[in-house]
Order: sequence, then structure tokens, then C-alpha cells
Amino acid sequence: MKSVTILGATGSVGSSTLDLIERSPEAFEVVALTAHRDVAKLAAAAIRTRAKLAVVADETCLEALRAALAGSGVEARAGAGAVCEAARMGADWTMAAIVGTAGLKPVMAALEAGGTVALANKEALVSAGDVMTAAARNHGTTLLPVDSEHNAVFQCLDSTAPDRVSRIILTASGGPFRDYSHDQMGAITPAQAVAHPNWSMGAKISVDSATMMNKGLELIEAFHLFPLRADQFDVVIHRQSVIHSMVEYVDGSVLAQLGSPDMRIPIAYALAWPDRMATPCERLDLVRVGRLDFEAPVDWRFPALALARDALSAGGARPAILNAANEVAVAAFLEGRVGFLEIAAIVADTLARYDPAAPESLDAVLAIDAEARAYAGERVKDCVL
Amino acid sequence: MKSVTILGATGSVGSSTLDLIERSPEAFEVVALTAHRDVAKLAAAAIRTRAKLAVVADETCLEALRAALAGSGVEARAGAGAVCEAARMGADWTMAAIVGTAGLKPVMAALEAGGTVALANKEALVSAGDVMTAAARNHGTTLLPVDSEHNAVFQCLDSTAPDRVSRIILTASGGPFRDYSHDQMGAITPAQAVAHPNWSMGAKISVDSATMMNKGLELIEAFHLFPLRADQFDVVIHRQSVIHSMVEYVDGSVLAQLGSPDMRIPIAYALAWPDRMATPCERLDLVRVGRLDFEAPVDWRFPALALARDALSAGGARPAILNAANEVAVAAFLEGRVGFLEIAAIVADTLARYDPAAPESLDAVLAIDAEARAYAGERVKDCVL
Repeated sequence: MKSVTILGATGSVGSSTLDLIERSPEAFEVVALTAHRDVAKLAAAAIRTRAKLAVVADETCLEALRAALAGSGVEARAGAGAVCEAARMGADWTMAAIVGTAGLKPVMAALEAGGTVALANKEALVSAGDVMTAAARNHGTTLLPVDSEHNAVFQCLDSTAPDRVSRIILTASGGPFRDYSHDQMGAITPAQAVAHPNWSMGAKISVDSATMMNKGLELIEAFHLFPLRADQFDVVIHRQSVIHSMVEYVDGSVLAQLGSPDMRIPIAYALAWPDRMATPCERLDLVRVGRLDFEAPVDWRFPALALARDALSAGGARPAILNAANEVAVAAFLEGRVGFLEIAAIVADTLARYDPAAPESLDAVLAIDAEARAYAGERVKDCVL
Repeated sequence: MKSVTILGATGSVGSSTLDLIERSPEAFEVVALTAHRDVAKLAAAAIRTRAKLAVVADETCLEALRAALAGSGVEARAGAGAVCEAARMGADWTMAAIVGTAGLKPVMAALEAGGTVALANKEALVSAGDVMTAAARNHGTTLLPVDSEHNAVFQCLDSTAPDRVSRIILTASGGPFRDYSHDQMGAITPAQAVAHPNWSMGAKISVDSATMMNKGLELIEAFHLFPLRADQFDVVIHRQSVIHSMVEYVDGSVLAQLGSPDMRIPIAYALAWPDRMATPCERLDLVRVGRLDFEAPVDWRFPALALARDALSAGGARPAILNAANEVAVAAFLEGRVGFLEIAAIVADTLARYDPAAPESLDAVLAIDAEARAYAGERVKDCVL
């Protein structure tokens, strides 16, 4: 029996993790489930999986959670502090799937508790990569990537011999606008941007996919996950998203992981690692897929990618600023306050205006994150649509 | 220092192996090199690599070899028996690259000598799979595949957990006639058949690629190399031959090995395994490749594939008969004596007419091989072009 905690159990990744765990009740024992404020879904999952603890981050939901769990034997708690305490309970395996900056403290708590942490939160490694990987090292915690690209690299990488790896190649769908002219890109609406071709995902990440900032953030994550130099990470546009990423070795061999677009595949790999477990996911049928295409990202069309590369090379606080400014800019775009092409411009200007020293603690990262958001917010106000 | 013997040092695979070894003279020490009758090439390679022994299989070439090696300190020997004795000298690593049935006894000698045998000879596992793998087991010999497809599988397979593998998918170029009509196929000439789209190879294997018998033989080899059931091996046509083969796991993940069409890549993997070594091979550039296509092999167009599957399922002597009859039929086609579509018919008829018991020794395999060739030869005479 592997004991499991899911931080962010009601979101997409959390629900997929629960699906896998509930298919093998003999193999897993649930310690704690947490959610932001979806009390009904959280309580139902906690009761089904006989979790010891259910935590809702929004304290105003505590009474509702207590009521939903009444008589079930599942303990109910609430608040950001309680989420971190759940992370610290020391499950063998913790899924860190809380989205955004809100996930940083719980990820840190899980890393400090030891065991294995499956990481689905992007900000942990983008904004606080040095701090997080140091915590994992210091506490002997195993960090496993859940994101399909990084999980693919993890499956293909011989991490015992990093000097035999020459390159890591992340694939990117290129988003829905990869063939647009500059004028067409300037006129992109939020409704167009949230329609991602291959995966069903939220609005923020769909916009990041369209700007390719998503791939830029993944480059930064990959750098913290895998022991290579920054210049050994490449990106190729592969519109079908069937190859999830690749590793090139010094002998010229390239290993790739492919699969159907089902997040349960990388989650299952992280859940069973170093073993594998069966999943009900649709098998990849390459004959039905028919063809796989590859092209290079065009620089002028995807300035976010260059911004991310620069932030990765510079290190320190730059990736945290990049990420925070991008969140503000994307939110402003989705609210119709700035144009599509202004997203990267806002990020670039924020990076130009704000250049603090490298953060040495998670609190320092969070302070930089907040300050960068303020700078980016000011910059948004300058835009007139 | 790894001591190395190359059986078949002057052919394509042997030359590629020498190229890699000569780039790392500090890592390898050459024990013996053998060749069929290319004395000049053999002697030059033996002198360059300071081999202890050079063997020419054709005894009439002994004097020429002695003359070419005079004063070099390399010992010269000749004859089929001397080739086997070279294989038995117990190098750490032996490349078994003698083509055809002539390679069987040397492969067996190498397997009985222990160490690691890199296998490029197809007949060893097609005709004598049970006998050869038993010899490897009994002598604690490690058998590594060099063929690009099997080497790709080997790179992607977690052989410690075969029950976690659901499928092995061999890719096939489909040859130059994969879109031909039945009438067009009947009119294929030897000159058309030897022009393979992706790899530069000999006439026999080019025809096997066009009939897809090559892939059928590889299915049989794969069955002996990897611990899965016969029904777990699939074939997909992938005209660009960039993905060299794939392994599907129970979680839905598919791992693939890709690369440029350079045999030095799989040879280097076998040479350095379990480590990897740098090669000068061209790196795969997927952007330049642009696209990868996949389609299912059409049954009526590739009857050889079904014949090979049947032989694999039946086991025993069937694969040896399949292989022997195919060699006779392909030779007759290349001589203009039978049509392209008759190749599979000759193989099918030979299998129908000759059904001996399973061979239990290499001599029994060789006897079945000779008998099958006689049956196939009779069948060829029945054809009138």
C-alpha cells in the first residue's frame, strides 16, 4: 500500500489522479485531499476513497465541508495553513496539483516532508526553481514531473548518465495561431485564444499555449528538473502533440515518448514509478493519426519564447518576474483590456523595469512575485484598447 | 579496454563497426577480424587496428592474405573452421555480421564463447532462434541486437519488467511499391526492386524490403530477442524510416527510438552498452524531415508478412523453411527467372510441401535449410516467365 495525498484534488489533474487511485483501491491509501472551494466534489472524493482528512483552502467553506462529511469519519479542516499541514503529513506520494502561486507553499511543505512529490504546479519550478530543488535535495525528496512534456523527458532520460545526453527537445503544439500573420495575431480575441487544438485546458494555459509562453515556462521547469545546461534545451513545433518530448543522446539516438492526449498516462507513470501501472487510457493508434508534423517556432511570432530563454539564462529573480508579469498580462487580455501582442510586451517591460536580487527563500520569491505583479499592473494601465 | 572481434569485418556493418572502433583506439583492442574473400580490405583493417588475427573464409585466399599481412605481426588464417575458431577466442564483445546461412556456425561459436555478442546476422534468430537463444542462456552470453529496428526496441524496452509491456511495434518503410496496384506489382523488375528509398543496402534485402518479407523475418527475430507473446508484435508502415521502432507500455505510454539512417548509431549503442559513446553521425533534424507518416500494411499487397506471422506462430522448423525458400525465390527473381509476386507464392508452396519436426541442434537447422532450398528450387523450375 502506497499512502497518497492530493493537493488540489478537485481540479483536472487531481481528478485524474483520483480516477487512477480508485481503480486500484488495493494499492493506495489516501491520507489527505485538499481543494480550493469545491466542497461537494472534495467531500464526495474523500468519502469514496476513505481519506483521513479533507481540507478546503477557503475558510468560509469549513462549515459546508463539515456538513458534507458528517458521519463519514473524514476529518474536515480549512485554510491555507491547513493545506500546508496536510502536505506535511508525510504521505509516501503527494500530488502537488494546486494551480498558480497559491500552490507554492504547499509544494514546499510537501518537499520538506520527504517521500515522493509528483509536481503538476508550474510555478514551483518556474518562480522558485532554485529554492524548491534545494529543498528536495536537502530532505531527500524525489521530485517527479507530471506535465506531459517533462514526464516524457523523464521516461526517455537516463538520469544516471547525464553526460551521455546531448539535447532535450520539448514539443509544442504551437497553439491555434502558429500560421497567423503579424496583423492577424494583433486581432486575436480571447475567445479564439482559449480554443486549444489538442488538449482541453483552462483559459490561462490556452493563452500561454497560443503565445508559446507555456513552452517558455516549460523550458525553465525542464532546466530545474534535468541536469543539463540551459543551451541543451530545444523546442520544436509539433502540431499533433503526439510526441510529448524527446531526448537526444551523444550517439545520435533520439528517444521519444508518445501517447494519446490523456493526462492519466503521465500521472500513472509518476504514481507507479519506478514500476508502471495499467491505465484505461486510449491506446495510441499511429495509423489513425496518420502523420506527425514538425516545424521550427518563428521568432517574431513567439516573442514570449525568447523572453523565457533570456530569463532562464539570467536566472535569479528573472523567471519569477516573467511568470508573474505573464499572469497579469494574460488576465488583462482575457478581460479584453489589452491585445494579444501586448502580452509579451507587458512581460518584456516588466522585466526591464524590475530587477531585484536572486531570492534565497520562498518568502523572497513570493515578495518578488507580488512586486512584479504590481509593475505589470501599472504597465497594463498604460495600454488602451 | 574492451577486446573486440568482428566476424564479417569487410561488409557494411563490419566496416561501420571498424569506423567506430578506430575513432576510440584507447577503448578497444581488436582480437580477430574475419572476411569472406576481400583480402585487401581485411588486411588493411587488421594492420590499422593491430588485430591479433585475420581470417579469410575462402581457403583459396590464404596465400594472398599472408602476403598482404607480411611483416605486420597479424596472424593469417583461412577456412570456415578458422572463422569459427576466431569466434571462439573469447573477445569481450563480438560483432556477428556474416551475412546469410554462412554466419550461423560462427554465431553459435561466439555464443558458446560467452561475453557479449552483437548480432547483425538475421538468419541466426530466424532459422535457429530456439537453438541460438538456448546457447546464449546456457553460456551466460549477452545477445544485443544491431538491426536498427531491434536495437530501437532494445533502447526503449524495460526488459526487467516485460509484463509492463503491452506491444512492440516494428516500423517498416513499406518499400518502393507500397502504393502499387496488383497489376503494377506483377510487373516489378529487379532493377526497380533494388532501389530502396531510405537506406543503402544490398539487392537481397532491398527485395525483402519491397515484399516486406524483411519485416516478417524481423518479427521472428524480435520474438526471440524480447520476452513477449507472438501476438504482441505489430508492424506499421512508416515511409520515412525515422522512427526505428516502438514499445507500448500498459499505461498507454509509447517509447520510440528515432535517428538518422546511419547504422553506426545502433552499432555504437551495442558497442558501448550499457553506456553510450559519442558518434560522428548526423543528428536527426525533425524540422528538416518535416513530417512522419504512418499507415497499415495492406494484406493483399504484402502476403510475405502473413506467411512470416504464420511461421512465427507455428514455430519449430517453419521459420527456417520460410527463410530458405525466400532466399531461393529472391535469387530467382533477381536472375529474372520468376516474377515479383511469385516470391511469396514459392515460399508458401515450399512451406506447404515440407513440414519436418522442430530442429534441436544447429546441424538439424542447417539440414532443414538445405532441404527447404531444394524444395524451393524445384518450385522455381515450375515457374515460366
